Amino acid sequence: MKEKINVGILGATGMVGQNFIRLLEDHPWFNIRFLAASERSAGKSYREAVEGRWHMDGDIPESAGDLRVDRVGDLEKAAGVCSLVFSALSMDKASIRDLENRYAAAGLTVVSNNSAHRNSPDVPILIPEINGNHLDIAESQRQRAGRQGGLIIVKPNCSVQSYITPLYAVMAAGYRVDRVLATTLQAVSGAGYPGVPSYDCIDNVYALSDEEAKFEREHRKIFGQVSDGVIRNDESVTVSAHCNRVPVIHGHTACVSVGFAGKKPSKEEIIRIWNEFRGEPQERNLPSAPAQPVVYREEKDRPQPRLDRDNQNGMGVTTGRLRDCPILDYKFTGLCHNTVRGAAGGALLMAELIAARMNPDL
Amino acid sequence: MKEKINVGILGATGMVGQNFIRLLEDHPWFNIRFLAASERSAGKSYREAVEGRWHMDGDIPESAGDLRVDRVGDLEKAAGVCSLVFSALSMDKASIRDLENRYAAAGLTVVSNNSAHRNSPDVPILIPEINGNHLDIAESQRQRAGRQGGLIIVKPNCSVQSYITPLYAVMAAGYRVDRVLATTLQAVSGAGYPGVPSYDCIDNVYALSDEEAKFEREHRKIFGQVSDGVIRNDESVTVSAHCNRVPVIHGHTACVSVGFAGKKPSKEEIIRIWNEFRGEPQERNLPSAPAQPVVYREEKDRPQPRLDRDNQNGMGVTTGRLRDCPILDYKFTGLCHNTVRGAAGGALLMAELIAARMNPDL
Amino acid sequence: MKEKINVGILGATGMVGQNFIRLLEDHPWFNIRFLAASERSAGKSYREAVEGRWHMDGDIPESAGDLRVDRVGDLEKAAGVCSLVFSALSMDKASIRDLENRYAAAGLTVVSNNSAHRNSPDVPILIPEINGNHLDIAESQRQRAGRQGGLIIVKPNCSVQSYITPLYAVMAAGYRVDRVLATTLQAVSGAGYPGVPSYDCIDNVYALSDEEAKFEREHRKIFGQVSDGVIRNDESVTVSAHCNRVPVIHGHTACVSVGFAGKKPSKEEIIRIWNEFRGEPQERNLPSAPAQPVVYREEKDRPQPRLDRDNQNGMGVTTGRLRDCPILDYKFTGLCHNTVRGAAGGALLMAELIAARMNPDL
Amino acid sequence: MKEKINVGILGATGMVGQNFIRLLEDHPWFNIRFLAASERSAGKSYREAVEGRWHMDGDIPESAGDLRVDRVGDLEKAAGVCSLVFSALSMDKASIRDLENRYAAAGLTVVSNNSAHRNSPDVPILIPEINGNHLDIAESQRQRAGRQGGLIIVKPNCSVQSYITPLYAVMAAGYRVDRVLATTLQAVSGAGYPGVPSYDCIDNVYALSDEEAKFEREHRKIFGQVSDGVIRNDESVTVSAHCNRVPVIHGHTACVSVGFAGKKPSKEEIIRIWNEFRGEPQERNLPSAPAQPVVYREEKDRPQPRLDRDNQNGMGVTTGRLRDCPILDYKFTGLCHNTVRGAAGGALLMAELIAARMNPDL
Repeated sequence: MKEKINVGILGATGMVGQNFIRLLEDHPWFNIRFLAASERSAGKSYREAVEGRWHMDGDIPESAGDLRVDRVGDLEKAAGVCSLVFSALSMDKASIRDLENRYAAAGLTVVSNNSAHRNSPDVPILIPEINGNHLDIAESQRQRAGRQGGLIIVKPNCSVQSYITPLYAVMAAGYRVDRVLATTLQAVSGAGYPGVPSYDCIDNVYALSDEEAKFEREHRKIFGQVSDGVIRNDESVTVSAHCNRVPVIHGHTACVSVGFAGKKPSKEEIIRIWNEFRGEPQERNLPSAPAQPVVYREEKDRPQPRLDRDNQNGMGVTTGRLRDCPILDYKFTGLCHNTVRGAAGGALLMAELIAARMNPDL
Repeated sequence: MKEKINVGILGATGMVGQNFIRLLEDHPWFNIRFLAASERSAGKSYREAVEGRWHMDGDIPESAGDLRVDRVGDLEKAAGVCSLVFSALSMDKASIRDLENRYAAAGLTVVSNNSAHRNSPDVPILIPEINGNHLDIAESQRQRAGRQGGLIIVKPNCSVQSYITPLYAVMAAGYRVDRVLATTLQAVSGAGYPGVPSYDCIDNVYALSDEEAKFEREHRKIFGQVSDGVIRNDESVTVSAHCNRVPVIHGHTACVSVGFAGKKPSKEEIIRIWNEFRGEPQERNLPSAPAQPVVYREEKDRPQPRLDRDNQNGMGVTTGRLRDCPILDYKFTGLCHNTVRGAAGGALLMAELIAARMNPDL
Repeated sequence: MKEKINVGILGATGMVGQNFIRLLEDHPWFNIRFLAASERSAGKSYREAVEGRWHMDGDIPESAGDLRVDRVGDLEKAAGVCSLVFSALSMDKASIRDLENRYAAAGLTVVSNNSAHRNSPDVPILIPEINGNHLDIAESQRQRAGRQGGLIIVKPNCSVQSYITPLYAVMAAGYRVDRVLATTLQAVSGAGYPGVPSYDCIDNVYALSDEEAKFEREHRKIFGQVSDGVIRNDESVTVSAHCNRVPVIHGHTACVSVGFAGKKPSKEEIIRIWNEFRGEPQERNLPSAPAQPVVYREEKDRPQPRLDRDNQNGMGVTTGRLRDCPILDYKFTGLCHNTVRGAAGGALLMAELIAARMNPDL
Repeated sequence: MKEKINVGILGATGMVGQNFIRLLEDHPWFNIRFLAASERSAGKSYREAVEGRWHMDGDIPESAGDLRVDRVGDLEKAAGVCSLVFSALSMDKASIRDLENRYAAAGLTVVSNNSAHRNSPDVPILIPEINGNHLDIAESQRQRAGRQGGLIIVKPNCSVQSYITPLYAVMAAGYRVDRVLATTLQAVSGAGYPGVPSYDCIDNVYALSDEEAKFEREHRKIFGQVSDGVIRNDESVTVSAHCNRVPVIHGHTACVSVGFAGKKPSKEEIIRIWNEFRGEPQERNLPSAPAQPVVYREEKDRPQPRLDRDNQNGMGVTTGRLRDCPILDYKFTGLCHNTVRGAAGGALLMAELIAARMNPDL
């Protein structure tokens, strides 16, 4: 790449924002030029703004630490210095949607870690290994909004990422899955910071009742098809979820039963499909792409969050325990790193995919 | 009760044995007269024998502390001083089966916390609220073994107790459940002591792959019928399980989806059935019986192990979150205290049921 | 007691307020008649007000659940129905001080769980076993404030309670301690709710730097003397503290080294002093008083928070591990339940002491 | 380095052994040629031998996985293929001492992670930044044992490493510390695997009473002087310890108060001394040496185990919170990674120091 692409981060001081800072350090394609946060942080250096609340391992990267933090409303400045922003805003949804729209209207690509736009029919929920073709909607989205350049894409809920790529791999190999019953054991970092009170999470687990509806719905759009300028949901897979919080720092685990419509693959075939599955990020060799998106482990007690969340720098999904299910067809366990693959890392991969599609020389 | 029934505890120094000691303190019907453990403890006072490894809250009960510990092989002594023993032996299964048989042959009722006899066709796996009628097998069991007096009964695996009584209550109300898909989040005390290494359980969860087969099978015998001197399994309910260990001290949680064959009750009816369910222990007003075996909580994030495990001194099952399941019919969460209801407390209730059936004046 | 004393709770919906509700259920002397909280809860029943945020084990007590919640500013109402309020307010210190002053001015005794008045020279920091005589300041406090009836007393920081009663017991036996070096391992419930983020407390410990100054200072007032209408600090004991948060729900542990000036007792004598120590609450047999305020355990690895925090319903202090210190004279470990003895339970005992002193017939 | 040095690992299948395997992968100087374990593992490939009990993050290194495991008694084989062994044996101390002696007698350098030889007067307890000069004892040790080549060195108890290098740095700068009072908060991995039962460590902390004597004694030998063929203890620093286990996976924290004899440095000077301290490993630029052995963090709540244990790949000590102590002179907190710097990583650095001293061209 001749010249790096300048990017910004909206909501740079929160936990997801910090993860973006960390992952973009020394990125081969992207260069941070704009950091925005709330009034409280505006005008400070990033280092000052996160003083006493830097939650990543290791220190604040030097280059980002010296940057001056702007207000999230300073979109003219953003538009002047960069062409893409990562959105990790923490506000009410209507305000986020409005701000993201305004950044897009200013011509910036908006790669959002937020859920505000997940229901917008022309905004893709992107998993680069699965539905990169949803980027075909770009032109329709721009036309409808009456803007140029700006495109909004969002990442899915972190909880679905433990099972959706493994599921897709099997479907892409020609098998029709029609039922999924999943129970999640989700890490506390999924709730951001301060997030989950210790009082709720020591010697305890509890239900995440509000996550279940999202979990049961989001795959429909991801598996959908672009048609007439909108994304038409795929209704072929029915999902039922039991979502739980457990005392784990990072790593969402999903215990999944799947049922097939029609011919079902053997267990050996599924394992082979998983280990051999490659998507567009792998074909394009994107900088943040895991070499092997789904890794199957043979041990009878894996995956485990502490041992497997960092699989391929936290960008791989680990599966294991594939076995017969007496109710549906098969059971397995899936795991992914919720704040890397499931949040900032996943969003970064989305941005890399857009950049690669737009710049064939990358 | 005119005179207390003298009882013994086999394996009195382990974690389950200690729970028996604790629960039998000041018991209105039972009186501890015999404590047996391994060679290492034999000859010591119970207090000395558990010094440095007493794991219960509070102190060693005075009366038990002063008892002298015998060898588990001293069954003549046991037979001389008591008529019932609780078995919390920790040995290989064949040795446990053999020892329990010998205690029974010596005329003692054996209420076992062990799994050794769970597959013996004439040994009931008893949940007093469900299958007290399996005690009808007593005469056949004695005849087959050629013994008098002695009867062996066992308690089920602790993991099934979070869901099986709620399930039974609905079935007893006339509805046919035919499919259950459950994911468990099980506490570390289920593995005894030392049990689960901290290294596996801090910031982590892991699969209990060996529990799943038991979980999928055990209800068949509990729901079975005594016929021709054996317990014939009920095969009408198919169960699929995902079993997990989580960093919780006490309290097994089960996330359950159920499917009905034929007519299904409304959610309101199920909740009513649960809250109104009463079994033989309640009718007989047994000392350890919870007044309400199944308690439904309305909050959207209950049950939780730390908040609900002590429901009715740890003897009640707590349910919650009853909602529609897109795959089967309904979803709910069940919880029970694994070392009380699921182990020593459950066994004690079994013994009380036997005592009450044999002594109608109790 | 002929008639119960009517009491109120300010800040009734928070964690400490909930603990007051729980501890006052069926209290032999006190009767809850007034519950106050913020605007958000005002007008609701207590049950509605804490829906979804009741953090105590077990359910909301029936009687309190039906009470209507008032605004904390409704002191006329409070003054009309009760004579004593427990303050568990959660606001800035100046506002708390002001509100507590106004309740006192309205003639109510204010027993405060807050720190706002800890530095007021005529407000006792009370530990009933230690400095009940500080209540002699009552008249001076009223005169200075120009009010009648109302008296304000506060409870000490929860962290000091793991060691200060054991220390006092030895001092009261005639030995002069002049140096204390303590490291605390404090439970998360000490920070209230939501309090400590799980993200900070799973697989981690961290310093409580702001607690150390309080820890090093508070004993001076508690050990002080009432003179000329103020409490004169005792400066004879120098304390140095390292304060830490650990992943424990309840129970503050302190690892303490002590040095004596002049004659020092033997270890046997200290243990005897601790086990035999009794204070005014024990002499007066107050309802919440532990029978034995300090219990010494002989095991080499006790006290432990999970095993010992509930010593005497959480009102006793447990000590252990008394041994020689190569730097000062002795080392020991102390533990108390931070939300019972260290907060609501301690405040309740303070109120009982006042009630008993004022009503000799109790 | 022209040719790599061939090394072996005794006790290769345990937790410390696995850490050696992990740290020696792709080591620039050392090449694993010999792996020994108990009878149970002998004859298997290393991969088979640790199947189901590999506790490191990531997978078993390919090269080591294919090696065949020998018996720990096969010292002729070891002597034939390597010149240095790392000892991570798990047996009684007398057997370890005997085996290590026999390996040394066979001409092998023994770098031991065990405590068996810590009291042998001619065996150095080595911290390469502190007492590399203790290697001068090599000739005396060989003579006394009547052997050639073989030299035994041991690493200190993991608990002291959180504070001893910072302490030494200040002493090496010319200040006389004479008193240290430390309370440790130690991670569970310090107990190996299975090690600490979860039952003891969830919602709990407990005392490590047996560690305290070691903690109070070990610095004397490390700070000692080689004289007349033995290491003479330095008695100038008196240490008092309170040792505790906390629910943390890796990272031992020490809360330390220090007192000086004579002139004491300012806080600024101590911080400067720590940050600038370099030892022989840094001068020789050893492969595993941290660039900065002691890193001082300015934040008021650091170090924290989860955030700071991986400082410089787990080989650095992190200090923080330097402040005045009302009892001694200063207080600070120190932290080190107990299984890296405090165990296998520390031992590897010892081996590198020996190799560098013997091969000046390295």
